[in-house]
Amino acid sequence: MTDSPILLTPGPLTTHPATRQAMLRDWGSRDAGFIALTAEMRARLLQVAQGAGSHVAVPLQGSGTFVVEATLATLLPPEGKLLVLVNGAYGERMVSIARRMGRRAEALRWREDEPVTPGLVASALQADPGITHVALVHCETTTGILNPLPEIAAAVAAAGRPFLLDAMSSFGALPIDLRTTPVTALMASSNKCLEGVPGLGFALIETAALAAAEGRSPSTSLDLHAQWRGFEKDGQWRFTPPVQVVAALVEALRRLEAEGGPPARLARYRRNLETLTTGMARLGFELYLDPAVQAPVIATFRLPQAPALAFRPFYDALAERGFLIYPGKLTEAETFRIGCIGALDETDFRRLLAAIEDVIGA
Amino acid sequence: MTDSPILLTPGPLTTHPATRQAMLRDWGSRDAGFIALTAEMRARLLQVAQGAGSHVAVPLQGSGTFVVEATLATLLPPEGKLLVLVNGAYGERMVSIARRMGRRAEALRWREDEPVTPGLVASALQADPGITHVALVHCETTTGILNPLPEIAAAVAAAGRPFLLDAMSSFGALPIDLRTTPVTALMASSNKCLEGVPGLGFALIETAALAAAEGRSPSTSLDLHAQWRGFEKDGQWRFTPPVQVVAALVEALRRLEAEGGPPARLARYRRNLETLTTGMARLGFELYLDPAVQAPVIATFRLPQAPALAFRPFYDALAERGFLIYPGKLTEAETFRIGCIGALDETDFRRLLAAIEDVIGA
Repeated sequence: MTDSPILLTPGPLTTHPATRQAMLRDWGSRDAGFIALTAEMRARLLQVAQGAGSHVAVPLQGSGTFVVEATLATLLPPEGKLLVLVNGAYGERMVSIARRMGRRAEALRWREDEPVTPGLVASALQADPGITHVALVHCETTTGILNPLPEIAAAVAAAGRPFLLDAMSSFGALPIDLRTTPVTALMASSNKCLEGVPGLGFALIETAALAAAEGRSPSTSLDLHAQWRGFEKDGQWRFTPPVQVVAALVEALRRLEAEGGPPARLARYRRNLETLTTGMARLGFELYLDPAVQAPVIATFRLPQAPALAFRPFYDALAERGFLIYPGKLTEAETFRIGCIGALDETDFRRLLAAIEDVIGA
Repeated sequence: MTDSPILLTPGPLTTHPATRQAMLRDWGSRDAGFIALTAEMRARLLQVAQGAGSHVAVPLQGSGTFVVEATLATLLPPEGKLLVLVNGAYGERMVSIARRMGRRAEALRWREDEPVTPGLVASALQADPGITHVALVHCETTTGILNPLPEIAAAVAAAGRPFLLDAMSSFGALPIDLRTTPVTALMASSNKCLEGVPGLGFALIETAALAAAEGRSPSTSLDLHAQWRGFEKDGQWRFTPPVQVVAALVEALRRLEAEGGPPARLARYRRNLETLTTGMARLGFELYLDPAVQAPVIATFRLPQAPALAFRPFYDALAERGFLIYPGKLTEAETFRIGCIGALDETDFRRLLAAIEDVIGA
């Protein structure tokens, strides 16, 4: 079992062998070599979204959820009130994270197959002056739906509220330009479109907003102001970093640049999605979302009813063939998901389609 | 720079090549193969301290500090009061973590070169019935001092208080038997005496104490009750796990068993320390601690005054020769530290001594 399976998931996903090989050495976390690696990682993360000058990159140990919680803990003052624009499970999670830490939070909800509409956001902000911060999930992995970031960011900026963007599944592929799109804090992780391995997340935060947040987080570990000050002081992490995960992410970021940056990566993911959806339609699988709002990140398909296909045996049969698909996350429909991201291209998707055809005996 | 340096640090430390090679594949975090790997890791962690039956192992993404904070957040009720037995920086950090999350916490302090004394602990607990929990750092990496665990645990148990043990630098080598030593929660991490790579911590918690802690943590990410329930439900992690770090830890735990378990590892670390201190004495370096309280984990040496040796050039000269030592963490004396843990043996320490001799021109 040393061969890696093909992961068709929203992450951890299939990584390039060179990215994994970057983990083959030990690093002293306080040594000059690792300090330089951390600095390169932070600079490259900013560069992906053109944030140098306006934002700082603050990496954090743990998963994407840890960085979402840390961003809310660091930026929301005790008297603040968060409005989360929700059309999936990750938006709901932000509401519950904020409430759990004792902050006021409300959801403005859309259906899971409907993108967030900027007009309703503007009205909600006008109706409640008590809302101090607005949060959005750019691409909801619940379904794979893409929310219209520039329009929503503009509506939030027009209402004068700081805007927190969960770009977990989009950062590195879908266009995000921090020079033209007003985003106070962008949250993402190592193991999605950046194609690193899991183990760390990061936030790109406007320097002024972060500088004003000293001592605000109720958590020592999840305090992005203190984490940032640590990097600024001596280039070192406050607490033990996952050194091999950092090394893998730096290799993955170098590979992103070599590929041609986010536009080239997006083009590859679009070809993956196109190959997948065309082939799946031919095999009789229905895409859950309207293609117009489908991001080239993860696609949700309905499980066929006649003849009925159950997820578990379908998953197992594909796993035996080396392909790991992903369960659905919807309550209202029987679905499964197939990721389009990771170190994969059309060839992999054509092989997947052949395996699916084989399994369903089409 | 693909060759790993020899890390003489308290972690991240030198790992075995086989442990790093375990990171060379991708894992689907919700796939049966990774669920089995997680189960093996959790069972092996309990086995290291004979905790099966009484305790459960709850791994957590992030560094050791994250798991310390999560344990305090999960087990300390809002009306609780923590007494930390402090003789170093990691004890002080526990006090500040607890206070930051809004819990009452006090320190009972000893000098940094003095072990915690069980008699004073008993008196303090008798004097203040308001203290609900007691915490100790087993081996303080600040100096390398070893605290008398069985005696302190007995004193805390006699006073009827739950006992929280930071065994970050001791777990896997120094003897901890949960059948005979009353410990409510033991906290440690992947990258110290277990010789895994950094990226996760874990707590071994008494099942009854953890079961009573539902909904108590103010943090979603740092909630070990919810984390545990996730594993119990379907064997999966609540949030994306660092899959390669988990794979490396399982390999490291298998290697620990193959070496002969904690007693064999302790014997190797003792030989490392003995080789180091004997050689350093010969070269004129003075050990900071009384050898009677020195753990075979990390040794603090005073920087010679005449002729004066400055840390920075000494560090750099050794780094050029492939050895990374560690700065001191004491304010009261000019010191540096050399770790004895990691995938190293006497041969490595003899090579280190030769390099030191070369650098100081002795």
